[in-house]
Amino acid sequence: MSEAQSVEAFDVVDLIRSKRDRNELSTAQIDWLVDAYTRGYVAEEQMAAMTMAIFLNGMDRREIRDLTLAMIASGERMNFDGLGKRTVDKHSTGGVGDKITLPLMPLVATFGVAVPQLSGRGLGHTGGTLDKLESIPGWRANLSNDEMFAQLRDEGGVICAAGSGLAPADGKLYALRDITGTVEAIPLIASSIMSKKIAEGTSALVLDVKFGSGAFLTDIERSRELARTMVDLGNDAGVATTALLTNMNVPLGLAIGNANEVRESIEVLAGGGPADVVALTIALAREMLTLAGQPDADVEAALADGRAMDTWRRVIRAQGGDPDAALPVARETHTVVADRDGVLVQQDALPFGIAAWRLGAGRARKQDPVQHAAGIDLLAKPGDTVRAGQPLFTLSADEPARFARALESVEGAWRIGDPGEPVLDGGPLVAERVS
Amino acid sequence: MSEAQSVEAFDVVDLIRSKRDRNELSTAQIDWLVDAYTRGYVAEEQMAAMTMAIFLNGMDRREIRDLTLAMIASGERMNFDGLGKRTVDKHSTGGVGDKITLPLMPLVATFGVAVPQLSGRGLGHTGGTLDKLESIPGWRANLSNDEMFAQLRDEGGVICAAGSGLAPADGKLYALRDITGTVEAIPLIASSIMSKKIAEGTSALVLDVKFGSGAFLTDIERSRELARTMVDLGNDAGVATTALLTNMNVPLGLAIGNANEVRESIEVLAGGGPADVVALTIALAREMLTLAGQPDADVEAALADGRAMDTWRRVIRAQGGDPDAALPVARETHTVVADRDGVLVQQDALPFGIAAWRLGAGRARKQDPVQHAAGIDLLAKPGDTVRAGQPLFTLSADEPARFARALESVEGAWRIGDPGEPVLDGGPLVAERVS
Repeated sequence: MSEAQSVEAFDVVDLIRSKRDRNELSTAQIDWLVDAYTRGYVAEEQMAAMTMAIFLNGMDRREIRDLTLAMIASGERMNFDGLGKRTVDKHSTGGVGDKITLPLMPLVATFGVAVPQLSGRGLGHTGGTLDKLESIPGWRANLSNDEMFAQLRDEGGVICAAGSGLAPADGKLYALRDITGTVEAIPLIASSIMSKKIAEGTSALVLDVKFGSGAFLTDIERSRELARTMVDLGNDAGVATTALLTNMNVPLGLAIGNANEVRESIEVLAGGGPADVVALTIALAREMLTLAGQPDADVEAALADGRAMDTWRRVIRAQGGDPDAALPVARETHTVVADRDGVLVQQDALPFGIAAWRLGAGRARKQDPVQHAAGIDLLAKPGDTVRAGQPLFTLSADEPARFARALESVEGAWRIGDPGEPVLDGGPLVAERVS
Repeated sequence: MSEAQSVEAFDVVDLIRSKRDRNELSTAQIDWLVDAYTRGYVAEEQMAAMTMAIFLNGMDRREIRDLTLAMIASGERMNFDGLGKRTVDKHSTGGVGDKITLPLMPLVATFGVAVPQLSGRGLGHTGGTLDKLESIPGWRANLSNDEMFAQLRDEGGVICAAGSGLAPADGKLYALRDITGTVEAIPLIASSIMSKKIAEGTSALVLDVKFGSGAFLTDIERSRELARTMVDLGNDAGVATTALLTNMNVPLGLAIGNANEVRESIEVLAGGGPADVVALTIALAREMLTLAGQPDADVEAALADGRAMDTWRRVIRAQGGDPDAALPVARETHTVVADRDGVLVQQDALPFGIAAWRLGAGRARKQDPVQHAAGIDLLAKPGDTVRAGQPLFTLSADEPARFARALESVEGAWRIGDPGEPVLDGGPLVAERVS
């Protein structure tokens, strides 16, 4: 062993070999590994080999908890005890057209619960909450901890960028996993999500774990395992945590993009909006309010009577946004029409998500900007009866050159069948609850 | 997909995910991967994840052949056709006290066969042929291709450093595997060894694949699989290749180190030397000469009558070495004696190899020097009858501070039993032949 290594508690190659050979890593080994990686002593290529070994050989519940706690310990930990309110947060594993955070945060905050919604930006075909809100003129995502605390106290809700001080080990590890094909491992997904949520200091958390063709994990079994793992991690760490397993086989709502998803969210807050978006907003709000001690809160009434909309307008204004400003509109649109009479029996989430991304709504690399007006507006949903020539969906982009590849993506992703043919929507929206 | 990626044939993350999910990589994918890694387009952390996926999910025969050919294609390929002699090389997977290349090269060259022995330096507990020969005053390891060719033509044999132009992808990949715990994967070992040997231009090759406690792969089953893989790779590439599976449970010969291994090799060339070293030298020489078309060559005679020694003296001189110069002697020695009367029933290769390394005979990092006089001289071999107080082995080092950790390593690695007790030497020296 070289002298440089002798001052370290462990040899990283021994640890990689251990996980490679299907052994458990001890608490001390995991603590050291995460700390040494954060410090840069463990090299990126060494952590890449370790994450692939974890991907393929797994981790048990104790190891996942240790990994999560070590990532929390790599940075600061926030505390909302001084707020004098219950705090409850929501996290979605991401899907196509998933704008639920936007109506949900003000709806729950309306009941006097603090909702500290630290969010991210989109990468690939799933959108990011901050990207969507940045469609609103003047709105800013970056708040200091003091600003966030003040807004939670005064308005009840905040949606802002997670500071780099929370679980920095996770930030580094996530970037590595993204380029090394090790994103979809349950121990790594669960510890990544939960380290940030626990470090954020919320006292309760509801997880929206997606399954289906447009989700991160397509199989419901794997989504259930992820939900179970995260619910255990949260409760073990003192954060009251439950999860809903929700269907992501078809896009959520009618809008996929950024500005159009804000528009749809405002419709929900105005008491309208697509049935699936309303239903999921209400289901998650009930979960959150139950964890906050208000199982009987009348969330439908708060949508119907404008109270949730009032909260929305206050929190948007508190972050510099103008809730009355016009949202951006794309320079070009292209509408696809029905090729026959019949029933829309198929509308696959993933190809529509990729098409929106190719139109400019998402980014391929972290540093890329998004085009806020780009995206897709669905004009029919699975189960709808349609007539030949009737518009099915409209693509919007600032650059017309983008339509060709977007249309390529949705080719074969929708189909009009005969009346009575089964609709391929993958079943109910909320499939299970995990607590 | 970003524009930078669109000019490349493949997306490396797709390839990593494919091997991660137990799919085969196509020939075009492997060619691109090795080329892109050599160019630096595929990052070290991406290749680290890929090698761990290969380690855990394996490669089939076609993939291993493609990987080997792609690594050969990453650099130059030598050609000895103009030599007018048959060329035959030997490669050992490495063991404790394995100095066989030193007597073997001149012995085979004595029969008019060219032996282009491109060798490496030691890392960890297995010694390197070049380190051993550098004990000889004046001897130099680095030859130009023209010097190597001329020496093969004039003297018949050469042992020198492999130029960095041969299979540079392998050099880069080996360094990565070394720090990421992915050394012991058969597809990666086989392609690493065989890419260099095939690029070197030999027309025949004998592999000495070790098994046992002091070997790279301890199980004979895994060593057999490695031998089979490499023999197939060689023959598929037009290099006549056979392998011997040989026992590395006990050190080979009596000397473990550098200068002392040269001394023992000279004893073998003088017609003496330990029985196991002589037996393995003869067995490998017969394999090599059979591949070179001389199955009936009388190799024992060439050792007994001094012809092999004459060739040794010429090739050492040709590389600047003085075959008559005194070899270095360590400043300090420490002798361990028998603790009782009986029979030496155990002498484990690995701990003795680690002890010699700790005495200074090996290096922990590539850039470290070795101490040529450091090492171990065994004074008894398993099966020998010993008396209490009789010397069993002598440690040599330039720095007496090194003795403590070397003695720690051999603690429990040897044992004196009662007469008639079974000797734990792991069976015959040459266990199997693979062709």
